[in-house]
Amino acid sequence: MNQPRLLYLQSGGPTAVLNASAQGVIETARKLGISVYAARDGLAGLLEDRLVNTDGVSDHDIARLGFLPGGHFGVSRRMIGRFDKCPEDWLRMKAVLARHGIHYLLINGGNGSLGCAARLADFQRHTGHALHVIGVPKTIDNDLVGTDNSPGYGSAAKFLASTMLEVGMDMISMGRGRVFIMEAMGRHTGWLAAAPAAARIHGGQAPHIVLLPEVPFEQDKFLAAVDASLAAHGQCAISVAEGLVDASGRFVTEANASAVYGHEQLGGVGSWLAGLLKRERGLSAHVAQVDYLQRAAGHLVSATDAAQAYQMGQKGVEWLQAGRSGEMAGIRRLSDHPYRWEVAAFPLSDVGDLEKAFPAHFISADGYGVTQVFLDYLLPLMEGERMPPFRQGLPDYRRIEWPPV
Amino acid sequence: MNQPRLLYLQSGGPTAVLNASAQGVIETARKLGISVYAARDGLAGLLEDRLVNTDGVSDHDIARLGFLPGGHFGVSRRMIGRFDKCPEDWLRMKAVLARHGIHYLLINGGNGSLGCAARLADFQRHTGHALHVIGVPKTIDNDLVGTDNSPGYGSAAKFLASTMLEVGMDMISMGRGRVFIMEAMGRHTGWLAAAPAAARIHGGQAPHIVLLPEVPFEQDKFLAAVDASLAAHGQCAISVAEGLVDASGRFVTEANASAVYGHEQLGGVGSWLAGLLKRERGLSAHVAQVDYLQRAAGHLVSATDAAQAYQMGQKGVEWLQAGRSGEMAGIRRLSDHPYRWEVAAFPLSDVGDLEKAFPAHFISADGYGVTQVFLDYLLPLMEGERMPPFRQGLPDYRRIEWPPV
Repeated sequence: MNQPRLLYLQSGGPTAVLNASAQGVIETARKLGISVYAARDGLAGLLEDRLVNTDGVSDHDIARLGFLPGGHFGVSRRMIGRFDKCPEDWLRMKAVLARHGIHYLLINGGNGSLGCAARLADFQRHTGHALHVIGVPKTIDNDLVGTDNSPGYGSAAKFLASTMLEVGMDMISMGRGRVFIMEAMGRHTGWLAAAPAAARIHGGQAPHIVLLPEVPFEQDKFLAAVDASLAAHGQCAISVAEGLVDASGRFVTEANASAVYGHEQLGGVGSWLAGLLKRERGLSAHVAQVDYLQRAAGHLVSATDAAQAYQMGQKGVEWLQAGRSGEMAGIRRLSDHPYRWEVAAFPLSDVGDLEKAFPAHFISADGYGVTQVFLDYLLPLMEGERMPPFRQGLPDYRRIEWPPV
Repeated sequence: MNQPRLLYLQSGGPTAVLNASAQGVIETARKLGISVYAARDGLAGLLEDRLVNTDGVSDHDIARLGFLPGGHFGVSRRMIGRFDKCPEDWLRMKAVLARHGIHYLLINGGNGSLGCAARLADFQRHTGHALHVIGVPKTIDNDLVGTDNSPGYGSAAKFLASTMLEVGMDMISMGRGRVFIMEAMGRHTGWLAAAPAAARIHGGQAPHIVLLPEVPFEQDKFLAAVDASLAAHGQCAISVAEGLVDASGRFVTEANASAVYGHEQLGGVGSWLAGLLKRERGLSAHVAQVDYLQRAAGHLVSATDAAQAYQMGQKGVEWLQAGRSGEMAGIRRLSDHPYRWEVAAFPLSDVGDLEKAFPAHFISADGYGVTQVFLDYLLPLMEGERMPPFRQGLPDYRRIEWPPV
């Protein structure tokens, strides 16, 4: 009997713990006697038969893999539609899978990628090639339905909250009159921009204002809140989501671009808010645009997040071997205090292509902060520190070479 | 005989290890039987008699102090001029110092603050009040003369280089066509913007281009370098100093503000470069503006930097007790490989109000990178990791209460 073979795909934007899931997949497969191929650049590499073989790579390197930021096999936004929409894609996939004797597919991605996984669960019915498909979530956006949280979010939140806490300490030492704006990612949901609010749990003041995409921006109310913060605390630290919208649902940067700039907006919403504060209040705000740093910060990973990412990869392989298909390995929370969780199965068809909003009861009454319920949700996800090895003062992220198939 | 008393001042912009110097000062003074008062908000607090007494604070809290970002006693930009320019300031200081029986002054600051320290070394001659004055450097800008490096720089460099390394890993996984711009601080010198170049020592590619204030910006040459990077690597990561200037010596953001925007420039040079790449090449660049994060990142401090900061504070106290005055405790490098250093004395009059440029031999021939000589200089300064204690997933930066005098 041939050795069973699994194909592992990373898809969508990377996180700081995406490769921890990859480590969980490969180490578990090795224990179970399953060969693991991985596609270069996600579905694109599968369709183009650009595969690598992880089997000959040393255990030591697979253990190192879990610390590396990014998606080490390469990711892409290439998706695959329903069979009736693009049969040629399905037949190309079938040819590649058959050529390499692959009957297990594990897709590690966000909502779009898991939507592909949901469709591909019907692979045998459409193509005749037996294929078990399991999804493992990843996204810093934390917007996947079903699972209590998505791997990647806890680490991004930990980085954002830690840096807001640190900047808050710096600001206090500089005295009155300081305004600081930190722009987090999040085009549609406030999961990331809300995270810095945790910086207040240790008695810190920052952030004084949190601006979420779920709360339409009102200029007068915002300016009054800044005034109030400066009056009460002498300072104002603001966490803002890149996707802040106005009452009409347009991104504020977009809606105001022509009126304010007369040309395409170049900076993000943080710079735009700084401009507003300058014009309307004469304030000089400092702006941090965190950008990729928040999802790549392998040096400050949440140990909880890394453990969950690993275990979801592990379960995915076990489930494939057990003959399961069409499921996502997600997190079910059992309790907040103490935090207890387990890996649980969610039907891929209930997850794919859907987006979980930041719940209304996580937002404070004035719309400019979060509730204790959100902090109870968030804090366990950031718990524990997982440092990478360091070499010459920098994280040791030496790349791993994967032999092509 | 009364217990000798030292007044400790923090002045100028904070660093991640400024409070490590404070810890060194207080712990050393305790061993030597010296009382330590500290001024709130630097020279402002001294002039206004807003002092706190560290003597009753527990040893445990003083040990915690060394981990806290910011300047925990408060900083200000308030400076003090020559005696003949502002005798009233000197006489106010004298009154405060005499009232509290203070004859030792330790100023922990950058070039402006150390200029004040240099002037105040003549305190007794002008005012009749015996005062020994020692300076301890701090600045992320690393622009102090005399000392081989300034405490604060190694940690800021470590954060910038680590995050560039991490983003570089993330970019590689996303494939071709990505452009990323990371804006570092540095109005006048390239010490900070050059640091991410260390991210390449482990085989990484990013940053492909480093833009320093020392190299006047030439648009055509820059665009050609971006083209070349995209052609060779499929990507382009850029580290840029906020103080990038054009051939006429004006900040590029300032020089181009009216032509490009028709209004005041709101974003930083990173956004401005992204706009340029959009207009001239149709490229969509990601921009990170690191801002205060780079100087407040207590979670990723260089252990070497923290140890030097501590020991300079320690030496400063020992020298004051030994009757020395008018000196700065700085670093003398003894060798690169292995890195060996010692605390050495530099006359304050040779340091104050001066600025150390980023040396020409640290810049690569094409002006868009650094030399091995710079890396030999930089790497030891980032060596070692000093993590703060964590609590509930975040650095434990609970503030210390200082009893007012």
